[in-house]
Amino acid sequence: RVFKLLVLPGDGIGPEIVRETLRVVDWARNAGLRIELSEALAGGASIDIVSAPIAEDVVEQALASDAVLFGAVGGPKWDHLPRAQRPEMGILRLRQALDLYANLRPAVCFDELLDASALKPELIRGLDILIVREATAGVYFSLPRANEVDADGARRAYDTQAYTEAEIARVCRTAFELARTRKRRVCSVDKANVMETGALWRAVATEVAADYPDVELSHMYADNCAMQLVRRPDQFDVIVTDNLFGDILSDAAAALTGSLGLLPSASLSGLDQGGDSRGLYEPIHGSAPDIAGQGVANPIATILSFALCLRWSFDRADLADALERAVRRVVSSGVRTPDIAEAGVAPVSTIQMTDAVLAALDTE
Amino acid sequence: RVFKLLVLPGDGIGPEIVRETLRVVDWARNAGLRIELSEALAGGASIDIVSAPIAEDVVEQALASDAVLFGAVGGPKWDHLPRAQRPEMGILRLRQALDLYANLRPAVCFDELLDASALKPELIRGLDILIVREATAGVYFSLPRANEVDADGARRAYDTQAYTEAEIARVCRTAFELARTRKRRVCSVDKANVMETGALWRAVATEVAADYPDVELSHMYADNCAMQLVRRPDQFDVIVTDNLFGDILSDAAAALTGSLGLLPSASLSGLDQGGDSRGLYEPIHGSAPDIAGQGVANPIATILSFALCLRWSFDRADLADALERAVRRVVSSGVRTPDIAEAGVAPVSTIQMTDAVLAALDTE
Ligand SMILES: CC(C)[C@H](C(=O)O)[C@@H](O)C(=O)O
Ligand SMILES: CC(C)[C@H](C(=O)O)[C@@H](O)C(=O)O
Repeated sequence: RVFKLLVLPGDGIGPEIVRETLRVVDWARNAGLRIELSEALAGGASIDIVSAPIAEDVVEQALASDAVLFGAVGGPKWDHLPRAQRPEMGILRLRQALDLYANLRPAVCFDELLDASALKPELIRGLDILIVREATAGVYFSLPRANEVDADGARRAYDTQAYTEAEIARVCRTAFELARTRKRRVCSVDKANVMETGALWRAVATEVAADYPDVELSHMYADNCAMQLVRRPDQFDVIVTDNLFGDILSDAAAALTGSLGLLPSASLSGLDQGGDSRGLYEPIHGSAPDIAGQGVANPIATILSFALCLRWSFDRADLADALERAVRRVVSSGVRTPDIAEAGVAPVSTIQMTDAVLAALDTE
Repeated sequence: RVFKLLVLPGDGIGPEIVRETLRVVDWARNAGLRIELSEALAGGASIDIVSAPIAEDVVEQALASDAVLFGAVGGPKWDHLPRAQRPEMGILRLRQALDLYANLRPAVCFDELLDASALKPELIRGLDILIVREATAGVYFSLPRANEVDADGARRAYDTQAYTEAEIARVCRTAFELARTRKRRVCSVDKANVMETGALWRAVATEVAADYPDVELSHMYADNCAMQLVRRPDQFDVIVTDNLFGDILSDAAAALTGSLGLLPSASLSGLDQGGDSRGLYEPIHGSAPDIAGQGVANPIATILSFALCLRWSFDRADLADALERAVRRVVSSGVRTPDIAEAGVAPVSTIQMTDAVLAALDTE
């Protein structure tokens, strides 16, 4: 079988880190994986050419692919544009068009970078939380929504957060399935004490749990979860939550680790590896326009995103494991791009970091 | 002038910490402040007697008062109740009925308790963030909202988040006014890149800022704010945000300080001290049913809430300052209830902690 991979480098450091990751894609090809590559525009790069953050034929192309490797989008050049025309809309459009309802955001601590964390080392050593964020419904996409002017000239805006039981159930199933490959604990996060969608969320999560008697389910309010993430992050294994809470809590969790520049993410339309489900893979960091074009960006988060692609879209957990081990060894050996370099360490370039990963893969 | 203070002890440790705080209220009376006290039921205590988390005549009484001192509500006994009948609805009802649109949540680090924080000491020493949360609109109160069953039997829930420009402007004004008494920096937090209400929030915050040329306004997305709070909390002075983001971010900020059990909050219908505006004052911690009735709860957050009441509702900043100084001195001298006691320190009781505060006030 030949897997189709669509590459969307995007803006800022996106093209640099994706270019290096393509060298790792070549390694996977040499290891026997058949990948058909194509590349297209997204984000500001797309706005500049076709006046839209993603062209409809690129969306079609993504729909016809097994996986999408996404760099990063956005930058000051497009900040003045109205919301619907901004670079970020490209990624939101893809999440919805490809039905990528399960946004997996691992918050993993690289113990070698422990000192870079704001938290005390003993609280985050070995930290490994997986946040499963619902990503195709909720306040991001529900209608009605508007910015209006009343008869008396006063402005008023509103958004809707809607969820069906099916939308909640499927992402909860993903969380429970993934928990089975981990510590078998799922914490479902909502504001059931305040929101109607929260009450439904809690009810459906509880129902889904009945099919997973081997996994422990707990419930937590979103405000308390934000607090607990800071106080005692190691109490969590898998967290499943809605689109908006997931956006906020996954960023908080990622920040805890101190390994922000290294963290990948996956957005899936299901877990049937090698089957029908589609995946989009991207680093959790942004486009970092301030350092774009200098060749110093850290490619690891994108390379690890490709590892997730190997695991979830290309059914090659063996290659994913090898790649993750190689990255770990490179980080352990002290190779550092400027973003993670300790004082006194001479940093390497984007290319050199990738060289190191490829060299480590050679000895896998 | 005689100030009317309504006391709502609530559930769990609420009655204990409020009882001790009333001794500090007596101190204020002895210092010449004329306070007319009354007490009523709220939360579970109210549910048990009148089958509602707050009775309408208690709401009337609150409306006729200058200030409300609130303990804490909730506990396992009432957890099975449907949302609308639960203890928490008491506080939500009061926020709306009294139009307490500005919920002030200081996240202040007591340097003596630095070691109790999950963060590295150098990141939070001297930390002093004020979160101004909108508390009477947004997803907490907007209509329509429902949990429905479709024709085909599938459940669907939705909530609405609505904001008018007036609702946004007034809480932003509060934030700017308060910033003038501090470091003159306001960070307005929203999801303007995703939500219609976020776009309006950003526009109105920017307009209000024009009246405060001496205060610096910045904007941040809520997910980034969660991240920045963890990474570099000292970049913030005043944060102003909506009801839901404020709920989550203020809990994250409070957790950072490690001084959770000591933090007060104020909910105000305006800043005209000693004027027409009403205030409700409560600790940010909960009712802690696990330690209720043992006489070991920490009364400091409630006592400091009364300090905020002295400042904002009773126009006695002098007494507020004296009380805050006294509490600082007690904490500095090493007096500790069990929740904040370091290993090897013999903890004191709720009453003894209050004794210490009153003794410190004697030497003010
Ligand atoms: C860019 C933005 C629209 C997006 C979101 O809010 O989902 C981002 O913050 C993310 O988490 O992927
Ligand atoms: C008890 C609950 C309804 C409340 C809220 O969500 O506002 C609480 O979390 C708070 O922050 O005061």
